[in-house]
Amino acid sequence: MKKLINDPADVVAESLRGVEAAHRDHVRVDHDNRIVYRRDTPRAGKVGLVSGGGSGHEPMHGGFVGVGMLDAACAGEVFTSPVPDQMMAATETVDGGAGVLHIVKNYTGDVMNFDMAAELAGDVEVRSVVTNDDVAVQDSTFTAGRRGVGATVLLEKIVGAAAEEGRTLDDVHALAVRVNESARSMGVALTSCTVPSAGKPTFELADDEIEVGIGIHGEPGRERKPLAPARDVAAMLVEPVLADLPHQRGDSVIAFVNGMGGTPLIEQYLMFNEVTKLLDQAGLTIARSLVGSYMTSLEMAGCSVTLLRCDDELVRLWDAPVNTPGLRWGA
Amino acid sequence: MKKLINDPADVVAESLRGVEAAHRDHVRVDHDNRIVYRRDTPRAGKVGLVSGGGSGHEPMHGGFVGVGMLDAACAGEVFTSPVPDQMMAATETVDGGAGVLHIVKNYTGDVMNFDMAAELAGDVEVRSVVTNDDVAVQDSTFTAGRRGVGATVLLEKIVGAAAEEGRTLDDVHALAVRVNESARSMGVALTSCTVPSAGKPTFELADDEIEVGIGIHGEPGRERKPLAPARDVAAMLVEPVLADLPHQRGDSVIAFVNGMGGTPLIEQYLMFNEVTKLLDQAGLTIARSLVGSYMTSLEMAGCSVTLLRCDDELVRLWDAPVNTPGLRWGA
Repeated sequence: MKKLINDPADVVAESLRGVEAAHRDHVRVDHDNRIVYRRDTPRAGKVGLVSGGGSGHEPMHGGFVGVGMLDAACAGEVFTSPVPDQMMAATETVDGGAGVLHIVKNYTGDVMNFDMAAELAGDVEVRSVVTNDDVAVQDSTFTAGRRGVGATVLLEKIVGAAAEEGRTLDDVHALAVRVNESARSMGVALTSCTVPSAGKPTFELADDEIEVGIGIHGEPGRERKPLAPARDVAAMLVEPVLADLPHQRGDSVIAFVNGMGGTPLIEQYLMFNEVTKLLDQAGLTIARSLVGSYMTSLEMAGCSVTLLRCDDELVRLWDAPVNTPGLRWGA
Repeated sequence: MKKLINDPADVVAESLRGVEAAHRDHVRVDHDNRIVYRRDTPRAGKVGLVSGGGSGHEPMHGGFVGVGMLDAACAGEVFTSPVPDQMMAATETVDGGAGVLHIVKNYTGDVMNFDMAAELAGDVEVRSVVTNDDVAVQDSTFTAGRRGVGATVLLEKIVGAAAEEGRTLDDVHALAVRVNESARSMGVALTSCTVPSAGKPTFELADDEIEVGIGIHGEPGRERKPLAPARDVAAMLVEPVLADLPHQRGDSVIAFVNGMGGTPLIEQYLMFNEVTKLLDQAGLTIARSLVGSYMTSLEMAGCSVTLLRCDDELVRLWDAPVNTPGLRWGA
């Protein structure tokens, strides 16, 4: 295992120290509870947004804490759900009287623990949205139902902008549900990743093989296929996404090509170019786009494609100012 | 070779198509000349900033084109200098009457070709700054003198802000020289990278070895060492940088931990945490910081550390609005 770490047991704690040191202007970190907070949370009358999940997907979620996005992110061990006590502490801390929305990716541990935290934080009004945008498989290693993947990033941005406008918890929750329902994703891995505490690759792939429909923790996808040109890999992702996404010709989408952590940007842009051609053939307009490594799987090579069908309201909220370590514009 | 590409010969051209499709609001691309332009260049009275170099280092340089940073970036083949005709075209296009600064990393091909371009663009007043911040080795595979690395990113940001203010070519050039002289860098590789047209790794490293002082094209560094904990690796980089950087206790720096392309962000933040401890011991204050993969070497795993000794003026220019695909804030 070749990593820039000290003791595998300290990876998450030490990385959070680095996040705090690099971004004191945006965030503060509760190191005991491993929670990244927006500096100015709670804000009276603003719905608090709490997310979190296993570490190893950086910048998600801690890198999306700040103005226009999350109020708090709970960090679990690598690829392991945070515990209810963390989520409860975050929920109580960020509540400004308008209630709190939990943004939860659909993995069994996360869903269970966020549910428990909502009960534990009894004085706070809590709603929850569970993202499940991954069309690759119906159930998976850590999931009943579809996995939550790239849509989570888009949702945190859009819902973050809505919360910033002072909308009610009902409104913000309904918007979150709508974003999740309007988004679909699928990913591919060219290589595995190595969880520090495991010390060896999560799975093995032959030199000429790719895993189509990969999960963000290395869960198996739909099938293994021979390595193929980027245009064919793009079709392997975009076609199942479009087959499942309710849409018609002439619709607009936010198109997101996400690097898994070990894929260079030059390849991500090349993939984005292939995706644009496929969307053009499908009669879809790209209203906005995002290309980069925003939801990673440690050093896994590969990428995912997320399409979010959008209207003027979603585009307006997407364009709203955001000021976080991982996503920043207009602020 | 496992990459998300089509034909290796088309990687740069197809990736630039993706850049254009993703960032139409910021840039336009001259595909014949492989130049990424700021949408609103030339601007009357503003010094034009042109950089460029081999591809494979994304987001550098094309990702740094936009308001508050570069006016144009010329893309060469992977790890290969662009040609003088590209640089000349960029120079003539971005000149708004106030002259053009070439920002050149110190590699023999780049320096020679930018020099030739300055001569060819005879009607435009051209100055040049050559970055050479890498303390690892005096001469290198592709370099007479020190290599230009991470300082280039910081310089493009700071000098970009100065040009935006309408400063003269003399001023902008002097500032660029000052930034380069105030910055030092060193990098380490945990793995090699594979140039698409070569199809095999540029160099070999054993499973327990790291290359200390690596160049951004995989050029040999100072020495191969056994893989070590992050705190020791950080010292291997920070100590030579501090030994060479003119500074005294109490000085402020902009601290930049750069991922090489295959190193996950969780490790980059962990390394940044180690760097902060070493700077604290040296009595240096971190005025600003940057953590992320901004100057990459394809999928190489590893990182570099750049320290720029700064004063209030440099910090103010660093904080100024920037709106590019790769670096964006306040705009």
